[in-house]
Amino acid sequence: MTLTETIPLGDYLFQRIRQLGITKILGCPGDFNMTLLDHIFNVEGLDWVGNCNELNAAYAADGYGRVRGLPGVIITTYGVGELSAINGVSGSFAEHVPVLHIVGTPARPEMEYRMWMHHTLPGGSDSENPDHSVYQRMSAPVRCVCAVLDDVDTLAEEIDRVLMTIWRKSLPGYIYVPLDIVNAPVPRAKLDVALRFKIVNPDPSLEDALVLEILDAIYKSKSPAILVDILARRHRARELVMELIEKTGIPSFSTDMAKGFVDEDHPSFVGQYNGRLSRPGVADAVESSDVVINIGPLISDSNTGGFTRFIDEKNLIMLHPSYVEIFGVRHDGLHFLPILEKLVARIDKSKLPELRTAESFNIGPPKTVESPADITTSYFYKYMGDSFLKPNDIVFAESGTAQYGINDAQFPKNVNFTTQLYYSSIGFALPAALGACVAQREIEAEGGPKARVVLFEGDGSAMMTAQELSTITRYGYNPIIFLINNSGYTIERAIHGPQAKYNDITPHWNWTGLFKTFGADESKYISAKVTTKKELEELLLSKEFAAAEGKARFVEVVMDKLDIPWRLTEQVATMSEKVKQWFNDYSTKRGEIPRAV
Amino acid sequence: MTLTETIPLGDYLFQRIRQLGITKILGCPGDFNMTLLDHIFNVEGLDWVGNCNELNAAYAADGYGRVRGLPGVIITTYGVGELSAINGVSGSFAEHVPVLHIVGTPARPEMEYRMWMHHTLPGGSDSENPDHSVYQRMSAPVRCVCAVLDDVDTLAEEIDRVLMTIWRKSLPGYIYVPLDIVNAPVPRAKLDVALRFKIVNPDPSLEDALVLEILDAIYKSKSPAILVDILARRHRARELVMELIEKTGIPSFSTDMAKGFVDEDHPSFVGQYNGRLSRPGVADAVESSDVVINIGPLISDSNTGGFTRFIDEKNLIMLHPSYVEIFGVRHDGLHFLPILEKLVARIDKSKLPELRTAESFNIGPPKTVESPADITTSYFYKYMGDSFLKPNDIVFAESGTAQYGINDAQFPKNVNFTTQLYYSSIGFALPAALGACVAQREIEAEGGPKARVVLFEGDGSAMMTAQELSTITRYGYNPIIFLINNSGYTIERAIHGPQAKYNDITPHWNWTGLFKTFGADESKYISAKVTTKKELEELLLSKEFAAAEGKARFVEVVMDKLDIPWRLTEQVATMSEKVKQWFNDYSTKRGEIPRAV
Repeated sequence: MTLTETIPLGDYLFQRIRQLGITKILGCPGDFNMTLLDHIFNVEGLDWVGNCNELNAAYAADGYGRVRGLPGVIITTYGVGELSAINGVSGSFAEHVPVLHIVGTPARPEMEYRMWMHHTLPGGSDSENPDHSVYQRMSAPVRCVCAVLDDVDTLAEEIDRVLMTIWRKSLPGYIYVPLDIVNAPVPRAKLDVALRFKIVNPDPSLEDALVLEILDAIYKSKSPAILVDILARRHRARELVMELIEKTGIPSFSTDMAKGFVDEDHPSFVGQYNGRLSRPGVADAVESSDVVINIGPLISDSNTGGFTRFIDEKNLIMLHPSYVEIFGVRHDGLHFLPILEKLVARIDKSKLPELRTAESFNIGPPKTVESPADITTSYFYKYMGDSFLKPNDIVFAESGTAQYGINDAQFPKNVNFTTQLYYSSIGFALPAALGACVAQREIEAEGGPKARVVLFEGDGSAMMTAQELSTITRYGYNPIIFLINNSGYTIERAIHGPQAKYNDITPHWNWTGLFKTFGADESKYISAKVTTKKELEELLLSKEFAAAEGKARFVEVVMDKLDIPWRLTEQVATMSEKVKQWFNDYSTKRGEIPRAV
Repeated sequence: MTLTETIPLGDYLFQRIRQLGITKILGCPGDFNMTLLDHIFNVEGLDWVGNCNELNAAYAADGYGRVRGLPGVIITTYGVGELSAINGVSGSFAEHVPVLHIVGTPARPEMEYRMWMHHTLPGGSDSENPDHSVYQRMSAPVRCVCAVLDDVDTLAEEIDRVLMTIWRKSLPGYIYVPLDIVNAPVPRAKLDVALRFKIVNPDPSLEDALVLEILDAIYKSKSPAILVDILARRHRARELVMELIEKTGIPSFSTDMAKGFVDEDHPSFVGQYNGRLSRPGVADAVESSDVVINIGPLISDSNTGGFTRFIDEKNLIMLHPSYVEIFGVRHDGLHFLPILEKLVARIDKSKLPELRTAESFNIGPPKTVESPADITTSYFYKYMGDSFLKPNDIVFAESGTAQYGINDAQFPKNVNFTTQLYYSSIGFALPAALGACVAQREIEAEGGPKARVVLFEGDGSAMMTAQELSTITRYGYNPIIFLINNSGYTIERAIHGPQAKYNDITPHWNWTGLFKTFGADESKYISAKVTTKKELEELLLSKEFAAAEGKARFVEVVMDKLDIPWRLTEQVATMSEKVKQWFNDYSTKRGEIPRAV
């Protein structure tokens, strides 16, 4: 340790976080993190947002990360807190969301001397030996980087390494902070060392060669297309991709997860591509292209129409955070961003072929599903797109019918849309919307555009995390929440057991009474319940609703329990067919007797 | 596969579970477990209890396991569900509670062919390769046994192995059920193979020698004592231990975690031992004994008065599920139960020394803490012990002030008491009480004694898991819940930051309105709020309260936010001193500059 001026480790950590532009730390207190929490308040502009539980905190940090691009920061306590949060962090890992999970642990001597502290697991089921590192190993599969701050000589470097890695990989990282290290001195001057966020691939000349190859392919093509997927947003490529589209006019498509990434009223936007489960004409449009530039792909079952994405590898260029693949030749270990930058800078419009116009494609309307209730999913989401959503809205659609139904909405410009279509952890979206509110308030404070946070939430999902509504009004956040009351887990009914009692939930929750019961001041929210289109439209157009702009607005929308969006029905049927085929193949190979799956 | 009559795997699994005496399966549906859930209803007497989320389900299964002695069974779905539950299972592992966690996973071909299914994590942060076994590895540290049912030839054997191991080890186990195995045929006759639950140590002659050694020590002693700890209850040794106490009259003590194990009005019961943090005289009484038979020890910080349990090893016999230790000589790999059985059978009262009587010890009263609110913790828990609790009550005290304060209550006979003093995951006790209700209903249906489930719950803790109240009334369970409203995390305030804002929670929750908002029928519950002793006592003695026996009864009890039970204050001070000593030693060894922890 040098003789220069020092600050406590806790201050260093939070100063570094604040330098990124972050103003709020999420989480729950616990006996191993409270001395660390004190240091939050030593940093100007930094404050605490306490969540009701750690899973909700992790979901909120994820929502923050998606909207802000910066890591959502949560602090939990050793073992009980960190494990409660782990499913939320796992979702962030699966969907490439930057999150920093800070865990307060026992003091180093407690761990070194193997003291049998509370919260501590033994090292095995026949062992009495407490092992304080068990939890650190359990989080390994859901993080891209980890630091255990147990060495006073490398504290600043370890923190910096984690922050830079989280940023570059856009994935969660962990910092474990032992209780006795919180006040360890760190040279203040280290705060002035610039963090390096630039993504650099190992071999720039390879980048150049690949860019040349891609350009050549585009110039030689007859019918190029751009297909944007969610990792493009997660890796902060929206401006770059839009510049490519603007500069070239190449017909462009978004996947379901990336819905709204390409403005849906943009002249180059053709449609939303999800394999065979797209609107009529879209799959043909993509798959008939002789060069498809697929930016940020996430090729999971539900984001490919149940593996019905059929883009011939000989026509496909994939730009991914961990590889670039051109016509079947994969280059691992390359991040697409530097390559995309060069591509955008170097592409020469005059060398492009004559492009198809968006109008030249014959895209059919979404299908319509009838249902006994007055408000149907087909009506509701179309109405949302046509009459309610506004440019810049930040929209969350919970896993369930909302995430399928919302594809019938035509989005206005620049909607930042999230649906956890890949990780699909129900209950996620409600606390995530809280995190989005935290992020948006920061964005506005920095002079960014005003935006609303709009949440489409299911009743079964909301029950998982409902208490976080109380955090929303506690801190005065103002999302607009549509609670789809369809009497249970309708997405599960679509898959199996439409009338099974395991797909029922506790009936008769008084949804519109939740804010009040959770202690919200009446000045902080409005709640309403609608069962007809007329009620819904009158409410949304009312002066009362508009005047409540600064409040949380909660609308319970009653739908039928078997009103299943057409895309969900088709997804289930498609996957069911696939699984049967795989199973027949698999069981035959193993010599098992084929049977119903 | 033989040509004998077969039943589907799903039926086999649930038949085996039902054979144990279990009637309810807890959990949440998900797309990878629903075909399995169907089979619950093929088994007579088996039914589904749907929880609001998976963590709550895991806590409930734990509460069930503690009361019933049989494994609490939860079913969750792959990834998102199982990880949400993992902290609850971890608590069961830490505190030796039998739980069976069944996880529905993707079909075997989906995993074998590495299909990119939703919920699936890649195998590493730079990998695109889906790895369906990641979650199985994450749960490894919190289970004693695991079966992945991927081989049709060993399905019955694998299930049986897991059930028997969970029982014998009294720890959680996992069964992973791929979607395509649910209907695989299992010979029905395998249901008739008896499961073997008997705990057998490898070397009976060693057992005999150890029993002889222990008997010899007791016979030669002048002042023997029995100290019962929580693993004795978890490993179903209560009857055996009580037989030992009855048979010998040896002065007996319970630890804080095992409070009530030895009836507190029993002539041989001396006091509750928690090192220096016991009532005056108790530590001396234990530590002055020349032979202490410590049954089922769990030697964690909070269960030893902050490591102030000073029983000389030369006087100590420890009977533990994974070892037996006699005067410092440890025999690993022995389970205490067979040894205890032999001990009880063979002990000869006539050879015992003259024993001290319980009255001969000079045990002082608990300390009293003053506090500004009319209802103080000192008053409240003493009143509960003196005037409210009844024989056979099943009592849960949530981690927090409740688990420290309740030690001032003198328990009536045969109270089955749980406080998660070791794992200490706040929010646990509320869903655990639901699980206890499920268990108790089974016990009564089998002709067991009637018993009330009584929960002492904190407000900060309750917020973590509050929605599970709706499950309680949905299924018509009738716990008595005392909700301690002391404006936040008072246990954290006791440790650090008494006025820190991170120890505040959302204020003004309408606690007594929760059942109604959560849809409970008015016939299913009563709620009341009390702020004075008079209100509390009048309520509990009222006809209305007594008449509501079949309903959930919810009493909000207002206390001061800094009313800290004396044991908690002393625990914090003791541990703080220890940590300073350890840290000074540790930092000196490492050449670090000592500083405040």
